[in-house]
Amino acid sequence: MTGEFDLIAKYFKPLAGPEGLALTDDASCIAASPHTDMITTTDMLVESVHFRSIDPVQSLGHKALAVNVSDCTAKGAEPKFYWLGLALPKDVNADWLRQFSNGLQQAQELFGCALVGGDTTATNGPIVISITLMGEVPHGQMIKRSGAMQNDDVYVTGTLGDAALGLWCLEKSFVDQQILVSAYQRPMPPSQFGVQSRALINSSADISDGLISDARHIAEASAIGIRLHQNKIPVSEHASKLMKQDSSLLSKIWSGGDDYQMVFSAAKNQRDKIAALAEQTNTRVTMIGETSDVHGVQLLDTQGEIVQVSVGGYAHF
Amino acid sequence: MTGEFDLIAKYFKPLAGPEGLALTDDASCIAASPHTDMITTTDMLVESVHFRSIDPVQSLGHKALAVNVSDCTAKGAEPKFYWLGLALPKDVNADWLRQFSNGLQQAQELFGCALVGGDTTATNGPIVISITLMGEVPHGQMIKRSGAMQNDDVYVTGTLGDAALGLWCLEKSFVDQQILVSAYQRPMPPSQFGVQSRALINSSADISDGLISDARHIAEASAIGIRLHQNKIPVSEHASKLMKQDSSLLSKIWSGGDDYQMVFSAAKNQRDKIAALAEQTNTRVTMIGETSDVHGVQLLDTQGEIVQVSVGGYAHF
Repeated sequence: MTGEFDLIAKYFKPLAGPEGLALTDDASCIAASPHTDMITTTDMLVESVHFRSIDPVQSLGHKALAVNVSDCTAKGAEPKFYWLGLALPKDVNADWLRQFSNGLQQAQELFGCALVGGDTTATNGPIVISITLMGEVPHGQMIKRSGAMQNDDVYVTGTLGDAALGLWCLEKSFVDQQILVSAYQRPMPPSQFGVQSRALINSSADISDGLISDARHIAEASAIGIRLHQNKIPVSEHASKLMKQDSSLLSKIWSGGDDYQMVFSAAKNQRDKIAALAEQTNTRVTMIGETSDVHGVQLLDTQGEIVQVSVGGYAHF
Repeated sequence: MTGEFDLIAKYFKPLAGPEGLALTDDASCIAASPHTDMITTTDMLVESVHFRSIDPVQSLGHKALAVNVSDCTAKGAEPKFYWLGLALPKDVNADWLRQFSNGLQQAQELFGCALVGGDTTATNGPIVISITLMGEVPHGQMIKRSGAMQNDDVYVTGTLGDAALGLWCLEKSFVDQQILVSAYQRPMPPSQFGVQSRALINSSADISDGLISDARHIAEASAIGIRLHQNKIPVSEHASKLMKQDSSLLSKIWSGGDDYQMVFSAAKNQRDKIAALAEQTNTRVTMIGETSDVHGVQLLDTQGEIVQVSVGGYAHF
């Protein structure tokens, strides 16, 4: 492989916005927009932990950016700029870089942001992809985890469990589940809905560790309870079919993780506007519960009985 | 080890500024300062590449932040906020985290910035530390690589080669070279001088890949030549002594890397002000050359002969 600077020039300079100074200085330079808050998030993907060595390389570029976009737009912020850190084993070749940067490029066009800086380094271990993403909201309008109130509705976007089931299919070598596999390899956070929902909703979190775990983040930050109804959780046709064959997969819906959808709360008088925004942005939005005065998150079955949730989300340590 | 959230709370929450929202939301929230440019840099440290597994853990926290501060202050920007990505093997324990966060805390107090977000993850490979640092300059005042002019003086801060020689000593198990070793493990970028020099100097780069390599960045970006004089390059007493014993070490001065000092250019009429600022900030600043109309970077010996520079700086690939 040629040197680090040639590599940057060839594969990453085409992705750079003007604030990245063509990736030829020590840092990027972004002029502050008046009356704006900068919402910034960072997520690391590690080979064999967050993706499989045999996953399509292009999908890694997509996923590394999408998981950051998920955090950013769940806060109501419009993605703008990102920085890329890349630790690569010596055997990574030009073809890998071409595919990876292609995936990144398609994702940044989809989500409307640009590369503005980065660092590439060698490693003796697995590939590590670290992205820091900055988005913008009008001052004071970030959707925090802490805004849920009594008598709110609780919603999620998309369908849940698809990514976790997709990974399960990959591990079992089920080859005919491309839609579920795609949810795992190419997550599609509801970015348009997230950004435009900030005037309508009062708390939000992205679902990366599983519904229960991320709903709990809202409950704790808002000092409120959340009650969710199992039969209301939106499930895709493919996921539903798979779970009928193996009912032990059911818990992946609420604790599988990797969904990159939103869980959020809103006052009841916002229902019509939320439905209209969902339609306008072509986003599936489903009311699955309500806030409550019982501490924590409860998942109820159709009989109103509490479902025992043994796995509270993915934990790395 | 306890869970990821407990770990964040225990070791990293004490480092968080208010913009980090106590590290309990999906993102940080920074209000834009009017008439300000945000200068942002990202650097990754990988175990066995950028540091040795047996280096003091506290020094890793210092170094990970310092290498980013170096980029930021070489651009004239005041360090403000940083995001930390951390990939950790399963055998990293609480003691490691305590020492690492201590090192980070001391460094952030030294350089005047605060943690505002991050991500921790498991890895099956080496430790990876990824920091993204944001600094601020008044709008339009970033010191770029591209501002060097004809008839400029060229300077460096500090002494060069200490870090590369410190690493060489560690590899040779020379135990009595603590000052050189410290330059490698705990780099001290000239942050005060960098920030305050922005009105006086017209181009700058941080020296991370070696003097020749980083001076070349300025030469190329400014479309100008740079002539450096070998006997003017500032060398510490310890480095000088070591090189007298082994003259093959000489090239580490200009191509060893890891210096985290500044190389910069300024008009001749700024000499007095630069000297005054150097004194005021207690920074060693040495004029080592001048811009020229010969393309590229030339290193000259005392006879005016060109020194052959075989190693043009550290390259990862």
